[in-house]
Amino acid sequence: MIIQLKKEITADEKQHLEQQLNQLHINFYPVVTQRGTYFICTPKEAFDIRKVGHLNGILDVHRVKGKHKMVSNKWKVNNTVIDCGDDVLIGDGKLTVMAGPCSIESEAQINATVESLKQNGVRIMRGGVYKPRTSPYSFRGLGMEGLKMFYNACQQNGIKIITEVMESGQIEEMMPYVDIFQVGARNAQNFNLLEALGEVDKPVMLKRGISGTIDELLYSAEYVFKSGNEKLILCERGIRTFENAYRNTLDLNAVPILKEKSHLPVIVDPSHGIGIRKHVAQMALASAAVGADGLIIETHKTPEKAATDGQQTLSFREFEELMQKLKVFETAFASS
Amino acid sequence: MIIQLKKEITADEKQHLEQQLNQLHINFYPVVTQRGTYFICTPKEAFDIRKVGHLNGILDVHRVKGKHKMVSNKWKVNNTVIDCGDDVLIGDGKLTVMAGPCSIESEAQINATVESLKQNGVRIMRGGVYKPRTSPYSFRGLGMEGLKMFYNACQQNGIKIITEVMESGQIEEMMPYVDIFQVGARNAQNFNLLEALGEVDKPVMLKRGISGTIDELLYSAEYVFKSGNEKLILCERGIRTFENAYRNTLDLNAVPILKEKSHLPVIVDPSHGIGIRKHVAQMALASAAVGADGLIIETHKTPEKAATDGQQTLSFREFEELMQKLKVFETAFASS
Amino acid sequence: MIIQLKKEITADEKQHLEQQLNQLHINFYPVVTQRGTYFICTPKEAFDIRKVGHLNGILDVHRVKGKHKMVSNKWKVNNTVIDCGDDVLIGDGKLTVMAGPCSIESEAQINATVESLKQNGVRIMRGGVYKPRTSPYSFRGLGMEGLKMFYNACQQNGIKIITEVMESGQIEEMMPYVDIFQVGARNAQNFNLLEALGEVDKPVMLKRGISGTIDELLYSAEYVFKSGNEKLILCERGIRTFENAYRNTLDLNAVPILKEKSHLPVIVDPSHGIGIRKHVAQMALASAAVGADGLIIETHKTPEKAATDGQQTLSFREFEELMQKLKVFETAFASS
Amino acid sequence: MIIQLKKEITADEKQHLEQQLNQLHINFYPVVTQRGTYFICTPKEAFDIRKVGHLNGILDVHRVKGKHKMVSNKWKVNNTVIDCGDDVLIGDGKLTVMAGPCSIESEAQINATVESLKQNGVRIMRGGVYKPRTSPYSFRGLGMEGLKMFYNACQQNGIKIITEVMESGQIEEMMPYVDIFQVGARNAQNFNLLEALGEVDKPVMLKRGISGTIDELLYSAEYVFKSGNEKLILCERGIRTFENAYRNTLDLNAVPILKEKSHLPVIVDPSHGIGIRKHVAQMALASAAVGADGLIIETHKTPEKAATDGQQTLSFREFEELMQKLKVFETAFASS
Repeated sequence: MIIQLKKEITADEKQHLEQQLNQLHINFYPVVTQRGTYFICTPKEAFDIRKVGHLNGILDVHRVKGKHKMVSNKWKVNNTVIDCGDDVLIGDGKLTVMAGPCSIESEAQINATVESLKQNGVRIMRGGVYKPRTSPYSFRGLGMEGLKMFYNACQQNGIKIITEVMESGQIEEMMPYVDIFQVGARNAQNFNLLEALGEVDKPVMLKRGISGTIDELLYSAEYVFKSGNEKLILCERGIRTFENAYRNTLDLNAVPILKEKSHLPVIVDPSHGIGIRKHVAQMALASAAVGADGLIIETHKTPEKAATDGQQTLSFREFEELMQKLKVFETAFASS
Repeated sequence: MIIQLKKEITADEKQHLEQQLNQLHINFYPVVTQRGTYFICTPKEAFDIRKVGHLNGILDVHRVKGKHKMVSNKWKVNNTVIDCGDDVLIGDGKLTVMAGPCSIESEAQINATVESLKQNGVRIMRGGVYKPRTSPYSFRGLGMEGLKMFYNACQQNGIKIITEVMESGQIEEMMPYVDIFQVGARNAQNFNLLEALGEVDKPVMLKRGISGTIDELLYSAEYVFKSGNEKLILCERGIRTFENAYRNTLDLNAVPILKEKSHLPVIVDPSHGIGIRKHVAQMALASAAVGADGLIIETHKTPEKAATDGQQTLSFREFEELMQKLKVFETAFASS
Repeated sequence: MIIQLKKEITADEKQHLEQQLNQLHINFYPVVTQRGTYFICTPKEAFDIRKVGHLNGILDVHRVKGKHKMVSNKWKVNNTVIDCGDDVLIGDGKLTVMAGPCSIESEAQINATVESLKQNGVRIMRGGVYKPRTSPYSFRGLGMEGLKMFYNACQQNGIKIITEVMESGQIEEMMPYVDIFQVGARNAQNFNLLEALGEVDKPVMLKRGISGTIDELLYSAEYVFKSGNEKLILCERGIRTFENAYRNTLDLNAVPILKEKSHLPVIVDPSHGIGIRKHVAQMALASAAVGADGLIIETHKTPEKAATDGQQTLSFREFEELMQKLKVFETAFASS
Repeated sequence: MIIQLKKEITADEKQHLEQQLNQLHINFYPVVTQRGTYFICTPKEAFDIRKVGHLNGILDVHRVKGKHKMVSNKWKVNNTVIDCGDDVLIGDGKLTVMAGPCSIESEAQINATVESLKQNGVRIMRGGVYKPRTSPYSFRGLGMEGLKMFYNACQQNGIKIITEVMESGQIEEMMPYVDIFQVGARNAQNFNLLEALGEVDKPVMLKRGISGTIDELLYSAEYVFKSGNEKLILCERGIRTFENAYRNTLDLNAVPILKEKSHLPVIVDPSHGIGIRKHVAQMALASAAVGADGLIIETHKTPEKAATDGQQTLSFREFEELMQKLKVFETAFASS
């Protein structure tokens, strides 16, 4: 059960509500976000909801029976729309594309990418400055220096930035330069990081774990939400299975399941999914067809020279072709 | 290496070729199908292909280095088109839909389905009469009696039949009533069945194993082909992973990979894939978007009363809506 | 619910029981095996068991609530002991070892193996004459000729034979030469084969499917049992997972789970499990420690020259060392 | 290639070595640990090792070709023995048992556990004070207060403490009270945490990721090692597969593979592995049989009342029985 409080609830009314819940022996967990204040209640037994619902200061009481609470669409029927500023929206019914290189490498690289994005009407650029790498001897990213370079180029061009944060200690430093914090697959259950991002008033995109279940992804989102941040985006990026004919098993089944269970927007990452350049566009089109709210795509001027992930990165020309196909798709179904 | 023989090769020319191969110490495996005669050669060392290529009776010599030979598109560049008769084609660049119930139950059920298919321009009906069931105490299908009933209704209406065969002993009896033999996921590596189907001049659709790799699916197709039957269709139907939020992980990644490696048409089964009725249509649309040659869909007049698989079966109305969406998709991309 | 009938039940008594069950609206499925006659009942509602239990001709009535019936130890409390003849037992509390080559290759190979088995007190020899191979171009076994050679050598030395049968059509021909029929992982859900083996009065060892669940293995055993054959052995041989550092993930967890759920003996195949020669012995010892009733081990005079599976096959010396370790283990725990 | 420097190498000698490597165009990565100083070299081409080996200040030069360097036993032939102080060793050829509750709950609980451990000769106690939980609404541990309580009880009794650290920010605070830092499965690729633990001079036990490969576990260890800490322990705790008949698929195959590749000790966690109380002891015995250096076992005075993981926790009596079986096993193989 979720009790949604009125914004103008008084301290007295709140105290009265708490007393009432205590008397009814209902455990409750207070959640305060940018958008509202909630009590998440886990009563041990069924009880008459009217005993609480009539109290002053309460906006609504929602029955939410499943395992997930704040991320469930059992209480929030309308889909959440993430506002990244400057009319850049995610989850508003259109397909939002984020694109850019795996790793930020140089100013020239950023500028070339920004040009390509602008020509295709893309408003969000991806690019890693802290790279989680399986081997400690691989390239690890340009760090804060790279991020500032990234920020300067994008800000001048009205492009928003999504980039990965790897631990809570990095958040403060990165904050001024980031529009959307990305949590990578390897940190999908780094609960300390998730809670720290709950205290931030910026959108957070959570990637599904390397072999994370859909339930676990929703629980991870719940961690961020209950810590205070409603601006959440889910991301399907492929799971680990026995099949080795491609990089990961991009699980498009997850999209309708997540949309059925949650009010949060769902982005698909076909680049890390199938992980093979020549097949990325087809998986991207299928992602649109299956109902994704957006895509995150790796693109690079010269993929074969990219510092990381070149084998799954589209050239600018391939990226442009994909964008045109996506428009054909959107137009067809907008008019149908 | 595949040596493709001329149709009019003489016995003398063939013997001469064999002698030549023996002299060169090249192992060869003769394959005779409805469409041609081939020698599959696995030489231990590289050798001068011209020593064979000039011989009389040889149509062409193809280098095919990978593990798969006859099913590889390294020798057969054009996609295989399966002709089911009466202008019913699979793999001709259009999306071929097969639809019908999981199990054949009654004449009334068949007739109602046939009507629905005709209204939607569908020419191939699915329906099981031998059902592989995990539990021996579950409904096992109507057998030959059901198949004959199925055949009578379809023949009168110009509808082709696809149905599952479970062991080689059933083939002869089923033959007159079947247009496409289906091999189920549990029999994906039943090599005796595969070889027996190689001796049949009817199309065969092979489902990927329950956790079969893409390579294994191609090897299974190779079994049928080298036993004499080129009329092969591959089918992605979902794999077994750790995720339990749906029935199987429909692996749309497999479609572009299979199309990249093989000349055989690829069908997707979203019903057995995601296995949840309300999500089947979205997965079907994504299957079209990812490049499938066709779909196999479970539909039933009253899914909630179906003998088997009702939870993943579309009602006729839902099926019609899906067919319309597929047309929107095909039209958009045909004109683009 | 399982109703176990008396051996001496009269036709009249049986008819009376059937009438009574019909009157009570209880579906029942008759099972006749070498050891007894049973009615498996699946009543739709709970009912008073005494309404049936007092009837003449009934030996016992067992409540068996789970999915599996005849293979469950809810009705058969004592473990099943398989008698292969000549005092060769499986499931009698001692560790039964079966060993031999992957494939039967020649008389010399068989004789050498027989010698090695005799020196180590092993009474059951394995060896494939029909080999299921992923690629159609691999060695497929010597067939019936190999089996007869195998039989002649073993019979003279008091050694029992276990070998794989691949389809129902092979059973009759193989019957005189086989002591235990093995069903391979790829045929774990070949239900036609399982039912055909239900009509045979010889022990059958069922391997777990390539990614078969424990439940599915028990269902496959149920297929054989309800078709008339109680002489069943289960075999864990490794499952398919994401891990590629070895051949299969030998799942020793399955052993205690199977022993908890079923009365059937459980054999472990560490050779196909981990699939790496130098680690087979350690996995074998762990299999004994986890409670397996026996082991099936690949051994060959010259593993590096074996026609198949040489990489996981023990030399005779390695096999002897393993047998000695197993004896140390058994002695330690017999006296503890 | 690993160049191991002499402890008494002078600054001049070191500089000279660096110059020589630069001249030979050999990339090198310096590693300084508690036990030694190393240069990890990744030359692009093969070169004459003697051009480096003769220089002053070099103890040894090792060819290590695989992906893993410092954790590989290609350069360090003898197994690493971890000294936890007070003669508590891990990896010395004997089976080291760590045991205790999943979560630290109270002083009474700790004291009761300490008593049980002492009676069974166990010198290391496990117990979580920071608990990673899938749901944010589950019990999260007693934190630092619990850890101090834990420390006081153990120190008085000569018991060492192993407990989980969840992020780098916690290390400093926990340091005085911890003997072995444990990294949980969900943080197996939290590279920031791993590097922070590299700067600590205390043993670190790394659990394999929820679906981590063996290679990834070794890479994670490499992260800690190259950051300066050689006191590393690996832990197999079960992987995620399709099978749901138990909690995780405890992968005993991983033990011989890890021992083959690395010089680090390997601990098995059968409690989190199979996750079912009545089967933990059998899996523990199998772990000993397969060559593990130790076990980590959950035990509790009253498992049914444990705050977390009660379903897989042994009672003290069950734990004692297991310890006796392990002694039988060790005795048998010590004398064999």
